[in-house]
Amino acid sequence: MQSIKVKSPATLSNICCGFDILGMALKEPFDIIELIQKEEPGIIIKHIDSFELPVDPEKNIAGVALQSMMHSLDNKQGFEIIIEKKIKPGSGIGSSAASAAGIVVAANELLGKPFNKKELLSFAMEGEVLASGSRHADNLAPCIYGGLVLIRDTPSLDIIPLNVPPLFITIIHPQIEIKTSYAREILPKEITLKNAVTQWANVAGLVSGFLKNDYQLIKRSLHDVVAEPVRSKLIPGFDEIKSKSMNAGALGGGISGSGPSLFMLSETESIAHSIEKTMKSVYDPIGIEYKTYVTTVQNKGVEIFN
Amino acid sequence: MQSIKVKSPATLSNICCGFDILGMALKEPFDIIELIQKEEPGIIIKHIDSFELPVDPEKNIAGVALQSMMHSLDNKQGFEIIIEKKIKPGSGIGSSAASAAGIVVAANELLGKPFNKKELLSFAMEGEVLASGSRHADNLAPCIYGGLVLIRDTPSLDIIPLNVPPLFITIIHPQIEIKTSYAREILPKEITLKNAVTQWANVAGLVSGFLKNDYQLIKRSLHDVVAEPVRSKLIPGFDEIKSKSMNAGALGGGISGSGPSLFMLSETESIAHSIEKTMKSVYDPIGIEYKTYVTTVQNKGVEIFN
Repeated sequence: MQSIKVKSPATLSNICCGFDILGMALKEPFDIIELIQKEEPGIIIKHIDSFELPVDPEKNIAGVALQSMMHSLDNKQGFEIIIEKKIKPGSGIGSSAASAAGIVVAANELLGKPFNKKELLSFAMEGEVLASGSRHADNLAPCIYGGLVLIRDTPSLDIIPLNVPPLFITIIHPQIEIKTSYAREILPKEITLKNAVTQWANVAGLVSGFLKNDYQLIKRSLHDVVAEPVRSKLIPGFDEIKSKSMNAGALGGGISGSGPSLFMLSETESIAHSIEKTMKSVYDPIGIEYKTYVTTVQNKGVEIFN
Repeated sequence: MQSIKVKSPATLSNICCGFDILGMALKEPFDIIELIQKEEPGIIIKHIDSFELPVDPEKNIAGVALQSMMHSLDNKQGFEIIIEKKIKPGSGIGSSAASAAGIVVAANELLGKPFNKKELLSFAMEGEVLASGSRHADNLAPCIYGGLVLIRDTPSLDIIPLNVPPLFITIIHPQIEIKTSYAREILPKEITLKNAVTQWANVAGLVSGFLKNDYQLIKRSLHDVVAEPVRSKLIPGFDEIKSKSMNAGALGGGISGSGPSLFMLSETESIAHSIEKTMKSVYDPIGIEYKTYVTTVQNKGVEIFN
């Protein structure tokens, strides 16, 4: 019986002005997913972590994504899935996407690569629908394609990988719960044309900055006038972390996905570590538990263990 | 007494999804502006065209832009300006911008280049304010910088030149009047967040397509869900021209600026000429006079005659 083990990375989504259209894969944290072929049909799921996620394949994100893929192959092959989740569910850095993307990439490898990335993404979307109730690819696509991706169109899964210059990312995950549905609900249904123009000018600047390796342009473009003004209020210490991180040399940053994790991008590792210290200095007196990461861009997406 | 003669190009602004933030300089049509130093102070303006534009320097766009520049130099130098306007005022392809940009680039050359492009742009903006009553750089910036430019931020004049692959542009200018102020007035003050996301996803795709020389991505991104749905109704034959141009192989296109000119982008000159024929076949039966152009990108912006 064959088996495979993959690292499935955390992902930033939105990236300030790129609300709902940009996502980036991170080197850390990542889930570890092992997939083992079985002789008997059926899917057995084991979680070797403490998050108490459902192990019923119909209710488990990885289970649903894998079933969607096997269904399209009309293959009755059985599997055992062992998931060691290191990306805490509800963190805003793509925990459910890591499960869904990791399993379909792993299964595709094990079965001799019958599917391309776009097909894998569409199977993984079934898992994301279970998690969030809506079809979003801004965490899944970077997880599968690696690096930074633009989701130009979600219904047709028009995914554009974009090169980025070396970047360091500092993340703080305050251990509070923000429901994605609530974070969506508080967004305005309409925005002023003026703010919309500001946002797409910055999106154009950010994408150009990434493609032209222009850090200063990236810095000038990392603004969000749409989601951040309303969502940042849900995260204690947001303004202080942001302003102190900018003083420490950050290019910019904001809320990852719908939060509660915050991220800051930097040009150097030493700045990224200074920002981590700054984040801790803001959160220690607040008294909410938190976790921090200093990481870089994962250009490969889901990666097979050697 | 020294003199200089420049070609000042027409410009596309908006470029579908890039509402208020993208502009592109064209090889044709262009105005010809001659600037002659005089011994006596004061500005004399002569128009050798039939548009009956004011020649009072306080009321003439080129006059205002030149005065703004000379004021900052505290220079009492006199000039004679001879303008041969070939870009019809009110065409939507940057007629006023060509006057304002052309004169400041010409004067800067004649005076030994005391100013950089950003400074020239700020002087030219004074002329544009006279023309439109508002500070917009989406025609001026491509006129001065050449090629395709992103106006990331208008107040700080953060202008980002973007490389583009070879492109051919077909333009039809129906001889009808659309007042810029009216074309602004009919725009919605607010747009849905959903449409805003669609628009900035396409902006990101379009900018990426240009920078990556990816014609198919450019084509998939050339959509405007904000201004085109309301403004296109002001232009007879819009839908027919657009759909027939797409059938003829256009990458996409729409209204230039606030119209009435329409543009279509193509990958080859022969497609651009087919589109011109198509445009004519739509407009001939309508019975409105029109003018067409088939041109390419002017990468130099305002150009000095040798």
